[in-house]
Amino acid sequence: MSGFEFLQKIVAGELPQPPLASLMDFQIVELAEGRAVFAVDPAEYHYNPIGVVHGGLAATLLDSAMGCAVHSMLPAGTGYTTLELKVNFIRAITAETGRVRAEGKLIHLGARTATAEGRVIDESGKLYAHATTTCLILKL
Amino acid sequence: MSGFEFLQKIVAGELPQPPLASLMDFQIVELAEGRAVFAVDPAEYHYNPIGVVHGGLAATLLDSAMGCAVHSMLPAGTGYTTLELKVNFIRAITAETGRVRAEGKLIHLGARTATAEGRVIDESGKLYAHATTTCLILKL
Amino acid sequence: MSGFEFLQKIVAGELPQPPLASLMDFQIVELAEGRAVFAVDPAEYHYNPIGVVHGGLAATLLDSAMGCAVHSMLPAGTGYTTLELKVNFIRAITAETGRVRAEGKLIHLGARTATAEGRVIDESGKLYAHATTTCLILKL
Amino acid sequence: MSGFEFLQKIVAGELPQPPLASLMDFQIVELAEGRAVFAVDPAEYHYNPIGVVHGGLAATLLDSAMGCAVHSMLPAGTGYTTLELKVNFIRAITAETGRVRAEGKLIHLGARTATAEGRVIDESGKLYAHATTTCLILKL
Repeated sequence: MSGFEFLQKIVAGELPQPPLASLMDFQIVELAEGRAVFAVDPAEYHYNPIGVVHGGLAATLLDSAMGCAVHSMLPAGTGYTTLELKVNFIRAITAETGRVRAEGKLIHLGARTATAEGRVIDESGKLYAHATTTCLILKL
Repeated sequence: MSGFEFLQKIVAGELPQPPLASLMDFQIVELAEGRAVFAVDPAEYHYNPIGVVHGGLAATLLDSAMGCAVHSMLPAGTGYTTLELKVNFIRAITAETGRVRAEGKLIHLGARTATAEGRVIDESGKLYAHATTTCLILKL
Repeated sequence: MSGFEFLQKIVAGELPQPPLASLMDFQIVELAEGRAVFAVDPAEYHYNPIGVVHGGLAATLLDSAMGCAVHSMLPAGTGYTTLELKVNFIRAITAETGRVRAEGKLIHLGARTATAEGRVIDESGKLYAHATTTCLILKL
Repeated sequence: MSGFEFLQKIVAGELPQPPLASLMDFQIVELAEGRAVFAVDPAEYHYNPIGVVHGGLAATLLDSAMGCAVHSMLPAGTGYTTLELKVNFIRAITAETGRVRAEGKLIHLGARTATAEGRVIDESGKLYAHATTTCLILKL
């Protein structure tokens, strides 16, 4: 099964959502070759001690969206692991922000590594965070 | 209340753990000036679709530990916000890894910004992830 | 003088190119509000010990291009300093690569901080490196 | 020849300094397994348009120091390439700063990738920049 086929089965509900997505209540909502979008409704159970959504939520969504953007391009018999992730936090997210989307997009796919970028936006397109990542491609 | 006093009250249980920490079941376990440690017992509900702990867990722990390392140095009347976070993932974490600790340590505290570093290790000291962050200091 | 006016004078040759640009022989070749492009002809004097252009050249060009993209948006009486820079290196640059361009583009301009992204491409549009940066805005 | 033997020959003057080091006038001054130090005397020809040393100098030194820290651990028949570099800039460097050193130190060496950290300090130990990097290890 290619990465794209594997991820399509999650979108279609034929394979389960990953456990952390269930815990934090985020879902994959769009998938294309080299692109994946996750969405979440921010709530108080996502908060940090300072009274806004913990940066870990945006980091987790962006890691998911960018990793799946890479995964969606991998042929059967290959996998990937994320080597590093960098996130810029632009604005605080709160329960009043409403639904946010983390969009991941492939930048470069090579034989051994891949890079991707991502951003978190609300329904009006306002930017909350942006990110880049480096992945290592593995022969399985 | 200074940042250190605020965080001490969380450690002592006089203020509640932040909601996301309750959701993901991690706790602050050590606090000193310029240093904070969070711990978690990785479990299957932290997993990603590939069958290991989601990178978002290490990113969230490191964001917490490094942010609190900065927060612990701030006088009353100041706060902070995280501008960016970069995480290197070294090894996969699984439910068999056992308890892991994310240690955050201040690198630089200036008048307007601060930086910190962090690492995630298991009980034998093996390294799973390391990170750096940049924070903006705010007059409240 | 605004940031844009200051940079326009460098493009027009009314203010000198910065010393490091003269040393490494790169130039600003395009300027718009929120966007700046630098160019260089890679040569053997840019090489590292491994026989390709040193990663420091792409990092320097990207730092320049992204910093100027931010600077171009700043009103008179404000300045900026770069807090951090992250560069992904995609392909080796050599003397045979020919002229490369580093394009910097503003992502976010706030009251206290700004972020930008950049990429290094050759004349056919092939990607050699990409980057993001965080800047602190200063009242002068 | 191992990476360590190759770098030792540069330190001993038996192999030439890399061209970019000659251009920017920095040198490798210390080498050990998993550790390398470069030094430079900052001067006006390193300046950016704002009148301090260009961030590209610290980025270039740190890329060199961290890359050599990784290279120093590689057996004969292997090489490396830098996948990404992140630099935090803490203080401006000027011609008055005096000699600065960029110290690179290995964090992790795996079969396929390695990570390292670095910092730029002056002769009194004051911190000017710090960094991390991810390298890909290549079978030659």
